[in-house]
Amino acid sequence: MKKLLLIGIGPGDPRQITYEAVDALRRATVFFVLDKGADKQDLVRMRRAILERYLPQGGYRLVQVADPCRDGAASDYVGAVQDWHGQRAALYARLLEQELAGDEVGAFLLWGEPGLYDSTLRILERVRLAGVALALEVIPGISSIQALAARHQIPLNRIGEPLTVLPGRRLGEQARIDNVLVMLDGQCAFAALDDPHLLIYWGAYLGTADELLVQGPLQEVKSRIVQLREAARRRKGWIMDTYLLRRAL
Amino acid sequence: MKKLLLIGIGPGDPRQITYEAVDALRRATVFFVLDKGADKQDLVRMRRAILERYLPQGGYRLVQVADPCRDGAASDYVGAVQDWHGQRAALYARLLEQELAGDEVGAFLLWGEPGLYDSTLRILERVRLAGVALALEVIPGISSIQALAARHQIPLNRIGEPLTVLPGRRLGEQARIDNVLVMLDGQCAFAALDDPHLLIYWGAYLGTADELLVQGPLQEVKSRIVQLREAARRRKGWIMDTYLLRRAL
Repeated sequence: MKKLLLIGIGPGDPRQITYEAVDALRRATVFFVLDKGADKQDLVRMRRAILERYLPQGGYRLVQVADPCRDGAASDYVGAVQDWHGQRAALYARLLEQELAGDEVGAFLLWGEPGLYDSTLRILERVRLAGVALALEVIPGISSIQALAARHQIPLNRIGEPLTVLPGRRLGEQARIDNVLVMLDGQCAFAALDDPHLLIYWGAYLGTADELLVQGPLQEVKSRIVQLREAARRRKGWIMDTYLLRRAL
Repeated sequence: MKKLLLIGIGPGDPRQITYEAVDALRRATVFFVLDKGADKQDLVRMRRAILERYLPQGGYRLVQVADPCRDGAASDYVGAVQDWHGQRAALYARLLEQELAGDEVGAFLLWGEPGLYDSTLRILERVRLAGVALALEVIPGISSIQALAARHQIPLNRIGEPLTVLPGRRLGEQARIDNVLVMLDGQCAFAALDDPHLLIYWGAYLGTADELLVQGPLQEVKSRIVQLREAARRRKGWIMDTYLLRRAL
Protein backbone atom coordinates (compact mmCIF):
# COMPACT_ATOMS: atom_id res chain seq x y z
CA MET A 1 0.00 0.00 0.00
CA LYS A 2 1.51 3.32 -1.09
CA LYS A 3 0.71 6.25 1.21
CA LEU A 4 0.19 9.48 -0.71
CA LEU A 5 -0.84 13.00 0.32
CA LEU A 6 -2.33 15.43 -2.21
CA ILE A 7 -1.67 18.77 -0.62
CA GLY A 8 -3.28 22.01 -1.81
CA ILE A 9 -0.68 24.72 -1.25
CA GLY A 10 -2.69 27.75 -2.33
CA PRO A 11 -2.20 30.11 -5.26
CA GLY A 12 1.32 31.34 -4.56
CA ASP A 13 1.59 33.20 -1.27
CA PRO A 14 3.34 30.79 1.13
CA ARG A 15 1.16 32.17 3.93
CA GLN A 16 -1.99 31.16 2.01
CA ILE A 17 -1.52 27.56 3.12
CA THR A 18 -3.42 25.89 5.93
CA TYR A 19 -2.09 24.45 9.17
CA GLU A 20 -3.54 21.12 8.03
CA ALA A 21 -1.45 21.33 4.84
CA VAL A 22 1.72 22.13 6.79
CA ASP A 23 1.04 19.20 9.15
CA ALA A 24 0.79 17.07 6.01
CA LEU A 25 4.08 18.47 4.63
CA ARG A 26 5.72 17.40 7.87
CA ARG A 27 4.40 13.84 7.57
CA ALA A 28 5.68 13.42 4.02
CA THR A 29 9.12 12.03 3.28
CA VAL A 30 9.14 12.11 -0.53
CA PHE A 31 7.82 15.01 -2.61
CA PHE A 32 6.95 14.45 -6.26
CA VAL A 33 7.40 17.57 -8.38
CA LEU A 34 6.14 17.21 -11.91
CA ASP A 35 6.21 20.14 -14.27
CA LYS A 36 5.96 20.81 -17.94
CA GLY A 37 8.90 22.46 -19.66
CA ALA A 38 11.80 24.66 -18.68
CA ASP A 39 9.74 27.84 -18.31
CA LYS A 40 8.06 26.31 -15.27
CA GLN A 41 11.29 26.52 -13.23
CA ASP A 42 9.72 29.37 -11.26
CA LEU A 43 6.98 27.01 -10.10
CA VAL A 44 9.52 24.46 -8.93
CA ARG A 45 11.39 27.24 -7.12
CA MET A 46 8.19 28.44 -5.42
CA ARG A 47 7.44 24.93 -4.19
CA ARG A 48 11.01 24.54 -2.91
CA ALA A 49 10.59 27.86 -1.05
CA ILE A 50 7.47 26.50 0.66
CA LEU A 51 9.31 23.35 1.70
CA GLU A 52 12.28 25.35 2.99
CA ARG A 53 9.98 27.66 4.92
CA TYR A 54 7.95 24.96 6.65
CA LEU A 55 10.50 22.12 6.76
CA PRO A 56 13.71 24.03 7.54
CA GLN A 57 15.25 20.94 9.10
CA GLY A 58 15.07 19.06 5.76
CA GLY A 59 14.83 15.29 6.04
CA TYR A 60 12.81 14.75 2.86
CA ARG A 61 13.55 13.70 -0.70
CA LEU A 62 12.48 15.63 -3.80
CA VAL A 63 11.69 13.61 -6.92
CA GLN A 64 11.59 15.94 -9.88
CA VAL A 65 10.32 14.66 -13.22
CA ALA A 66 9.29 16.25 -16.50
CA ASP A 67 5.58 15.74 -17.05
CA PRO A 68 4.54 14.49 -20.52
CA CYS A 69 3.13 17.23 -22.75
CA ARG A 70 -0.49 17.27 -23.78
CA ASP A 71 -1.38 17.49 -27.47
CA GLY A 72 -2.75 21.04 -27.43
CA ALA A 73 -3.69 20.91 -31.12
CA ALA A 74 -5.94 17.84 -30.88
CA SER A 75 -9.48 18.48 -32.11
CA ASP A 76 -10.98 16.10 -29.52
CA TYR A 77 -10.22 17.94 -26.28
CA VAL A 78 -11.54 15.39 -23.81
CA GLY A 79 -9.94 12.52 -25.76
CA ALA A 80 -6.57 14.32 -25.83
CA VAL A 81 -6.78 15.00 -22.09
CA GLN A 82 -7.62 11.36 -21.43
CA ASP A 83 -4.65 10.17 -23.54
CA TRP A 84 -2.46 12.54 -21.61
CA HIS A 85 -3.85 11.28 -18.30
CA GLY A 86 -3.07 7.74 -19.46
CA GLN A 87 0.59 8.65 -20.13
CA ARG A 88 0.85 10.40 -16.81
CA ALA A 89 -0.75 7.48 -14.99
CA ALA A 90 1.91 5.15 -16.43
CA LEU A 91 4.64 7.59 -15.35
CA TYR A 92 3.17 8.03 -11.85
CA ALA A 93 2.79 4.27 -11.39
CA ARG A 94 6.47 3.80 -12.32
CA LEU A 95 7.57 6.63 -10.00
CA LEU A 96 5.58 5.27 -7.07
CA GLU A 97 7.02 1.82 -7.71
CA GLN A 98 10.63 3.03 -7.88
CA GLU A 99 10.70 5.99 -5.54
CA LEU A 100 8.26 5.30 -2.71
CA ALA A 101 9.03 2.51 -0.26
CA GLY A 102 6.29 0.92 1.84
CA ASP A 103 7.25 2.82 4.98
CA GLU A 104 7.51 6.20 3.27
CA VAL A 105 4.83 8.85 2.80
CA GLY A 106 4.70 10.52 -0.61
CA ALA A 107 3.22 13.91 -1.39
CA PHE A 108 2.19 15.97 -4.36
CA LEU A 109 2.20 19.73 -3.81
CA LEU A 110 -0.68 21.10 -5.85
CA TRP A 111 -1.21 24.76 -6.66
CA GLY A 112 -4.52 26.12 -5.48
CA GLU A 113 -7.21 23.60 -4.63
CA PRO A 114 -6.68 19.89 -5.49
CA GLY A 115 -10.36 19.50 -6.51
CA LEU A 116 -10.48 22.36 -8.98
CA TYR A 117 -9.17 21.84 -12.53
CA ASP A 118 -6.31 19.69 -11.32
CA SER A 119 -5.86 16.22 -12.76
CA THR A 120 -3.77 14.53 -10.06
CA LEU A 121 -6.73 12.83 -8.35
CA ARG A 122 -8.00 11.47 -11.69
CA ILE A 123 -4.57 10.20 -12.67
CA LEU A 124 -4.08 8.46 -9.34
CA GLU A 125 -7.51 6.84 -9.80
CA ARG A 126 -6.13 5.34 -13.03
CA VAL A 127 -2.99 4.21 -11.22
CA ARG A 128 -5.21 2.50 -8.69
CA LEU A 129 -7.29 0.84 -11.42
CA ALA A 130 -4.02 -0.43 -12.92
CA GLY A 131 -3.49 -2.40 -9.73
CA VAL A 132 -1.36 -0.15 -7.50
CA ALA A 133 -2.87 -0.05 -3.99
CA LEU A 134 -2.97 3.56 -2.77
CA ALA A 135 -3.93 5.09 0.56
CA LEU A 136 -4.74 8.68 -0.37
CA GLU A 137 -5.39 11.74 1.70
CA VAL A 138 -6.51 15.03 0.14
CA ILE A 139 -5.84 18.39 1.82
CA PRO A 140 -7.83 21.36 0.47
CA GLY A 141 -6.07 24.57 -0.51
CA ILE A 142 -7.00 28.16 -1.30
CA SER A 143 -7.77 28.39 -5.02
CA SER A 144 -6.79 31.29 -7.22
CA ILE A 145 -10.46 32.31 -7.58
CA GLN A 146 -10.65 32.81 -3.82
CA ALA A 147 -7.46 34.87 -3.83
CA LEU A 148 -8.92 36.89 -6.74
CA ALA A 149 -12.14 37.66 -4.86
CA ALA A 150 -10.23 38.58 -1.70
CA ARG A 151 -7.86 40.96 -3.49
CA HIS A 152 -10.70 42.68 -5.36
CA GLN A 153 -12.88 42.55 -2.22
CA ILE A 154 -15.89 41.16 -4.06
CA PRO A 155 -18.28 38.28 -3.36
CA LEU A 156 -17.88 35.41 -5.82
CA ASN A 157 -21.65 34.94 -6.22
CA ARG A 158 -24.52 37.40 -6.59
CA ILE A 159 -27.33 37.23 -4.00
CA GLY A 160 -29.03 33.82 -4.07
CA GLU A 161 -27.73 33.09 -7.57
CA PRO A 162 -25.77 30.17 -9.00
CA LEU A 163 -22.04 30.59 -9.53
CA THR A 164 -20.37 29.19 -12.63
CA VAL A 165 -16.68 28.37 -12.83
CA LEU A 166 -15.35 27.34 -16.21
CA PRO A 167 -12.21 26.93 -18.29
CA GLY A 168 -11.57 29.67 -20.86
CA ARG A 169 -12.32 27.41 -23.82
CA ARG A 170 -15.92 27.07 -22.64
CA LEU A 171 -16.57 30.81 -22.29
CA GLY A 172 -17.63 31.33 -25.90
CA GLU A 173 -20.49 28.84 -25.49
CA GLN A 174 -22.23 30.80 -22.74
CA ALA A 175 -25.50 32.18 -24.11
CA ARG A 176 -25.54 34.95 -21.51
CA ILE A 177 -22.95 35.86 -18.93
CA ASP A 178 -24.20 37.17 -15.59
CA ASN A 179 -21.49 36.00 -13.25
CA VAL A 180 -18.79 33.65 -14.46
CA LEU A 181 -15.37 32.77 -13.06
CA VAL A 182 -12.85 31.79 -15.69
CA MET A 183 -9.73 29.71 -15.13
CA LEU A 184 -7.12 28.36 -17.56
CA ASP A 185 -7.74 30.92 -20.29
CA GLY A 186 -4.52 31.04 -22.26
CA GLN A 187 -6.35 32.49 -25.27
CA CYS A 188 -7.85 35.58 -23.60
CA ALA A 189 -11.41 34.54 -24.45
CA PHE A 190 -12.69 37.63 -22.61
CA ALA A 191 -11.18 39.88 -25.29
CA ALA A 192 -13.59 38.47 -27.90
CA LEU A 193 -16.69 39.50 -25.92
CA ASP A 194 -18.34 42.72 -27.02
CA ASP A 195 -21.12 42.89 -24.40
CA PRO A 196 -21.06 46.50 -23.09
CA HIS A 197 -22.57 45.62 -19.68
CA LEU A 198 -19.87 43.32 -18.35
CA LEU A 199 -17.39 44.16 -15.63
CA ILE A 200 -14.15 42.21 -15.33
CA TYR A 201 -12.09 41.50 -12.21
CA TRP A 202 -8.77 40.06 -13.34
CA GLY A 203 -5.70 38.89 -11.45
CA ALA A 204 -2.41 37.17 -12.27
CA TYR A 205 0.35 35.67 -10.10
CA LEU A 206 -2.05 36.15 -7.19
CA GLY A 207 -0.39 36.23 -3.79
CA THR A 208 3.12 36.61 -5.21
CA ALA A 209 5.40 39.63 -5.54
CA ASP A 210 4.47 39.82 -9.23
CA GLU A 211 0.71 40.04 -8.58
CA LEU A 212 -1.26 42.01 -11.18
CA LEU A 213 -4.83 43.21 -10.65
CA VAL A 214 -7.18 45.03 -13.02
CA GLN A 215 -10.87 45.70 -12.59
CA GLY A 216 -13.32 47.77 -14.60
CA PRO A 217 -15.82 47.73 -17.45
CA LEU A 218 -14.68 44.93 -19.77
CA GLN A 219 -14.70 47.04 -22.93
CA GLU A 220 -12.60 49.77 -21.30
CA VAL A 221 -9.92 47.58 -19.77
CA LYS A 222 -9.73 44.45 -21.91
CA SER A 223 -6.95 45.62 -24.20
CA ARG A 224 -4.91 46.77 -21.21
CA ILE A 225 -5.27 43.31 -19.64
CA VAL A 226 -4.21 41.62 -22.89
CA GLN A 227 -1.10 43.83 -23.06
CA LEU A 228 -0.19 43.46 -19.38
CA ARG A 229 -0.70 39.72 -19.60
CA GLU A 230 1.43 39.27 -22.70
CA ALA A 231 4.25 41.46 -21.35
CA ALA A 232 4.27 39.57 -18.05
CA ARG A 233 4.16 36.18 -19.76
CA ARG A 234 7.12 37.13 -21.95
CA ARG A 235 9.10 38.50 -19.03
CA LYS A 236 8.54 35.53 -16.73
CA GLY A 237 8.07 32.75 -19.28
CA TRP A 238 4.73 31.65 -17.78
CA ILE A 239 1.55 33.12 -16.38
CA MET A 240 -1.24 31.93 -14.09
CA ASP A 241 -4.28 34.19 -14.15
CA THR A 242 -8.00 34.08 -13.54
CA TYR A 243 -10.94 36.45 -13.76
CA LEU A 244 -14.56 37.07 -12.93
CA LEU A 245 -17.02 38.49 -15.47
CA ARG A 246 -20.08 40.09 -13.90
CA ARG A 247 -23.02 41.87 -15.48
CA ALA A 248 -23.43 45.38 -14.09
CA LEU A 249 -26.80 45.76 -12.34
CA MET B 1 -11.25 55.29 9.01
CA LYS B 2 -12.32 51.99 10.59
CA LYS B 3 -9.89 49.14 9.99
CA LEU B 4 -11.67 45.81 9.47
CA LEU B 5 -10.49 42.31 8.60
CA LEU B 6 -12.87 39.74 7.08
CA ILE B 7 -11.22 36.47 7.92
CA GLY B 8 -12.23 33.15 6.36
CA ILE B 9 -11.70 30.54 9.06
CA GLY B 10 -12.61 27.42 7.10
CA PRO B 11 -15.48 24.99 7.53
CA GLY B 12 -14.92 23.89 11.12
CA ASP B 13 -11.59 22.13 11.60
CA PRO B 14 -9.35 24.67 13.39
CA ARG B 15 -6.39 23.32 11.37
CA GLN B 16 -8.20 24.18 8.11
CA ILE B 17 -7.23 27.81 8.53
CA THR B 18 -4.36 29.51 6.71
CA TYR B 19 -1.23 31.10 8.15
CA GLU B 20 -2.42 34.35 6.55
CA ALA B 21 -5.69 34.10 8.50
CA VAL B 22 -3.89 33.46 11.78
CA ASP B 23 -1.58 36.44 11.12
CA ALA B 24 -4.78 38.46 10.65
CA LEU B 25 -6.28 37.12 13.91
CA ARG B 26 -3.13 38.32 15.66
CA ARG B 27 -3.49 41.83 14.22
CA ALA B 28 -7.12 42.19 15.32
CA THR B 29 -8.06 43.65 18.68
CA VAL B 30 -11.86 43.47 18.50
CA PHE B 31 -13.79 40.45 17.18
CA PHE B 32 -17.41 40.87 16.11
CA VAL B 33 -19.44 37.68 16.56
CA LEU B 34 -22.94 37.90 15.10
CA ASP B 35 -25.17 34.89 15.18
CA LYS B 36 -28.82 34.08 14.76
CA GLY B 37 -30.64 32.46 17.66
CA ALA B 38 -29.72 30.36 20.66
CA ASP B 39 -29.16 27.15 18.70
CA LYS B 40 -26.10 28.72 17.15
CA GLN B 41 -24.22 28.69 20.46
CA ASP B 42 -22.08 25.86 19.10
CA LEU B 43 -20.87 28.17 16.36
CA VAL B 44 -19.91 30.84 18.87
CA ARG B 45 -18.10 28.19 20.91
CA MET B 46 -16.22 26.95 17.84
CA ARG B 47 -15.06 30.48 17.05
CA ARG B 48 -13.95 31.00 20.64
CA ALA B 49 -11.99 27.74 20.42
CA ILE B 50 -10.17 29.06 17.35
CA LEU B 51 -9.31 32.30 19.15
CA GLU B 52 -8.09 30.43 22.23
CA ARG B 53 -5.98 28.13 20.11
CA TYR B 54 -4.25 30.82 18.08
CA LEU B 55 -4.34 33.74 20.55
CA PRO B 56 -3.67 31.94 23.85
CA GLN B 57 -2.28 35.13 25.36
CA GLY B 58 -5.66 36.88 24.97
CA GLY B 59 -5.50 40.65 24.61
CA TYR B 60 -8.56 41.02 22.43
CA ARG B 61 -12.19 41.97 22.94
CA LEU B 62 -15.19 39.92 21.79
CA VAL B 63 -18.33 41.83 20.78
CA GLN B 64 -21.20 39.39 20.61
CA VAL B 65 -24.51 40.54 19.13
CA ALA B 66 -27.68 38.81 18.00
CA ASP B 67 -28.07 39.18 14.25
CA PRO B 68 -31.52 40.28 13.01
CA CYS B 69 -33.61 37.43 11.59
CA ARG B 70 -34.47 37.22 7.93
CA ASP B 71 -38.11 36.84 6.87
CA GLY B 72 -37.87 33.27 5.60
CA ALA B 73 -41.52 33.23 4.49
CA ALA B 74 -41.30 36.24 2.15
CA SER B 75 -42.28 35.45 -1.42
CA ASP B 76 -39.72 37.89 -2.87
CA TYR B 77 -36.45 36.18 -1.90
CA VAL B 78 -34.01 38.79 -3.17
CA GLY B 79 -36.13 41.63 -1.74
CA ALA B 80 -36.29 39.92 1.66
CA VAL B 81 -32.53 39.37 1.64
CA GLN B 82 -31.94 43.00 0.74
CA ASP B 83 -34.24 44.22 3.57
CA TRP B 84 -32.33 41.98 5.92
CA HIS B 85 -29.01 43.31 4.63
CA GLY B 86 -30.31 46.83 5.26
CA GLN B 87 -31.11 46.01 8.89
CA ARG B 88 -27.76 44.36 9.37
CA ALA B 89 -25.97 47.32 7.77
CA ALA B 90 -27.60 49.67 10.29
CA LEU B 91 -26.57 47.35 13.12
CA TYR B 92 -22.99 46.98 11.85
CA ALA B 93 -22.63 50.74 11.38
CA ARG B 94 -23.75 51.29 14.99
CA LEU B 95 -21.42 48.57 16.29
CA LEU B 96 -18.43 49.96 14.41
CA GLU B 97 -19.23 53.44 15.71
CA GLN B 98 -19.55 52.33 19.34
CA GLU B 99 -17.13 49.45 19.61
CA LEU B 100 -14.20 50.16 17.30
CA ALA B 101 -11.88 53.05 18.11
CA GLY B 102 -9.70 54.63 15.44
CA ASP B 103 -6.55 52.85 16.60
CA GLU B 104 -8.18 49.43 16.86
CA VAL B 105 -8.44 46.69 14.27
CA GLY B 106 -11.79 44.92 14.02
CA ALA B 107 -12.38 41.46 12.62
CA PHE B 108 -15.23 39.27 11.49
CA LEU B 109 -14.56 35.53 11.65
CA LEU B 110 -16.42 34.02 8.72
CA TRP B 111 -17.09 30.31 8.27
CA GLY B 112 -15.69 28.89 5.07
CA GLU B 113 -14.80 31.35 2.33
CA PRO B 114 -15.80 35.04 2.69
CA GLY B 115 -16.65 35.30 -1.02
CA LEU B 116 -19.03 32.34 -1.18
CA TYR B 117 -22.65 32.79 -0.07
CA ASP B 118 -21.65 35.06 2.78
CA SER B 119 -23.20 38.50 3.04
CA THR B 120 -20.67 40.34 5.20
CA LEU B 121 -18.86 42.01 2.27
CA ARG B 122 -22.17 43.22 0.81
CA ILE B 123 -23.36 44.56 4.14
CA LEU B 124 -20.12 46.42 4.73
CA GLU B 125 -20.44 47.91 1.25
CA ARG B 126 -23.79 49.36 2.42
CA VAL B 127 -22.16 50.63 5.61
CA ARG B 128 -19.57 52.34 3.45
CA LEU B 129 -22.24 53.84 1.19
CA ALA B 130 -23.96 55.18 4.33
CA GLY B 131 -20.86 57.28 4.97
CA VAL B 132 -18.67 55.17 7.27
CA ALA B 133 -15.09 55.13 5.96
CA LEU B 134 -13.76 51.56 6.03
CA ALA B 135 -10.34 50.12 5.29
CA LEU B 136 -11.12 46.47 4.54
CA GLU B 137 -8.94 43.46 4.09
CA VAL B 138 -10.32 40.08 3.00
CA ILE B 139 -8.58 36.81 3.86
CA PRO B 140 -9.74 33.73 1.91
CA GLY B 141 -10.71 30.53 3.72
CA ILE B 142 -11.34 26.90 2.86
CA SER B 143 -15.01 26.54 1.92
CA SER B 144 -17.17 23.59 2.89
CA ILE B 145 -17.30 22.45 -0.76
CA GLN B 146 -13.52 22.07 -0.76
CA ALA B 147 -13.64 20.10 2.50
CA LEU B 148 -16.40 17.96 0.96
CA ALA B 149 -14.34 17.15 -2.13
CA ALA B 150 -11.25 16.39 -0.04
CA ARG B 151 -13.07 14.02 2.30
CA HIS B 152 -14.75 12.16 -0.57
CA GLN B 153 -11.50 12.31 -2.59
CA ILE B 154 -13.24 13.54 -5.72
CA PRO B 155 -12.52 16.37 -8.17
CA LEU B 156 -15.08 19.20 -8.00
CA ASN B 157 -15.30 19.52 -11.79
CA ARG B 158 -15.44 16.95 -14.57
CA ILE B 159 -12.72 17.13 -17.26
CA GLY B 160 -12.82 20.46 -19.08
CA GLU B 161 -16.39 21.14 -17.98
CA PRO B 162 -18.03 24.08 -16.18
CA LEU B 163 -18.72 23.75 -12.48
CA THR B 164 -21.95 25.09 -11.02
CA VAL B 165 -22.36 26.02 -7.37
CA LEU B 166 -25.85 26.97 -6.25
CA PRO B 167 -28.08 27.41 -3.22
CA GLY B 168 -30.59 24.59 -2.61
CA ARG B 169 -33.58 26.72 -3.58
CA ARG B 170 -32.25 27.00 -7.15
CA LEU B 171 -31.72 23.26 -7.66
CA GLY B 172 -35.28 22.58 -8.86
CA GLU B 173 -34.79 25.00 -11.79
CA GLN B 174 -31.91 23.07 -13.32
CA ALA B 175 -33.07 21.53 -16.60
CA ARG B 176 -30.36 18.86 -16.42
CA ILE B 177 -27.89 18.11 -13.68
CA ASP B 178 -24.46 16.88 -14.73
CA ASN B 179 -22.29 18.21 -11.95
CA VAL B 180 -23.71 20.62 -9.39
CA LEU B 181 -22.51 21.64 -5.94
CA VAL B 182 -25.30 22.62 -3.59
CA MET B 183 -24.97 24.81 -0.51
CA LEU B 184 -27.56 26.16 1.94
CA ASP B 185 -30.17 23.49 1.28
CA GLY B 186 -32.32 23.40 4.41
CA GLN B 187 -35.17 21.78 2.45
CA CYS B 188 -33.32 18.69 1.16
CA ALA B 189 -34.04 19.60 -2.48
CA PHE B 190 -32.02 16.54 -3.56
CA ALA B 191 -34.71 14.25 -2.10
CA ALA B 192 -37.24 15.49 -4.69
CA LEU B 193 -35.08 14.44 -7.65
CA ASP B 194 -35.99 11.12 -9.26
CA ASP B 195 -33.23 10.97 -11.88
CA PRO B 196 -31.82 7.40 -11.65
CA HIS B 197 -28.36 8.34 -13.03
CA LEU B 198 -27.24 10.77 -10.35
CA LEU B 199 -24.62 10.12 -7.70
CA ILE B 200 -24.54 12.18 -4.51
CA TYR B 201 -21.55 13.05 -2.33
CA TRP B 202 -22.91 14.55 0.88
CA GLY B 203 -21.21 15.89 4.00
CA ALA B 204 -22.26 17.68 7.19
CA TYR B 205 -20.26 19.33 10.01
CA LEU B 206 -17.23 18.90 7.77
CA GLY B 207 -13.92 18.96 9.60
CA THR B 208 -15.50 18.64 13.04
CA ALA B 209 -15.84 15.68 15.41
CA ASP B 210 -19.49 15.35 14.28
CA GLU B 211 -18.62 15.02 10.59
CA LEU B 212 -21.06 12.91 8.55
CA LEU B 213 -20.30 11.61 5.05
CA VAL B 214 -22.49 9.64 2.64
CA GLN B 215 -21.86 8.87 -1.01
CA GLY B 216 -23.67 6.65 -3.48
CA PRO B 217 -26.40 6.54 -6.12
CA LEU B 218 -28.86 9.28 -5.17
CA GLN B 219 -31.95 7.08 -5.29
CA GLU B 220 -30.34 4.47 -3.04
CA VAL B 221 -29.01 6.80 -0.36
CA LYS B 222 -31.27 9.85 -0.37
CA SER B 223 -33.66 8.69 2.34
CA ARG B 224 -30.74 7.68 4.56
CA ILE B 225 -29.27 11.19 4.16
CA VAL B 226 -32.62 12.82 5.00
CA GLN B 227 -32.88 10.70 8.18
CA LEU B 228 -29.26 11.21 9.24
CA ARG B 229 -29.56 14.92 8.62
CA GLU B 230 -32.78 15.33 10.57
CA ALA B 231 -31.51 13.26 13.52
CA ALA B 232 -28.28 15.28 13.65
CA ARG B 233 -30.08 18.61 13.34
CA ARG B 234 -32.38 17.68 16.20
CA ARG B 235 -29.53 16.45 18.38
CA LYS B 236 -27.29 19.49 17.85
CA GLY B 237 -29.92 22.14 17.17
CA TRP B 238 -28.28 23.20 13.88
CA ILE B 239 -26.69 21.70 10.81
CA MET B 240 -24.30 22.87 8.10
CA ASP B 241 -24.13 20.52 5.14
CA THR B 242 -23.32 20.55 1.46
CA TYR B 243 -23.33 18.07 -1.41
CA LEU B 244 -22.29 17.38 -4.97
CA LEU B 245 -24.65 15.80 -7.50
CA ARG B 246 -22.88 14.14 -10.43
CA ARG B 247 -24.25 12.22 -13.38
CA ALA B 248 -22.74 8.73 -13.61
CA LEU B 249 -20.82 8.31 -16.87
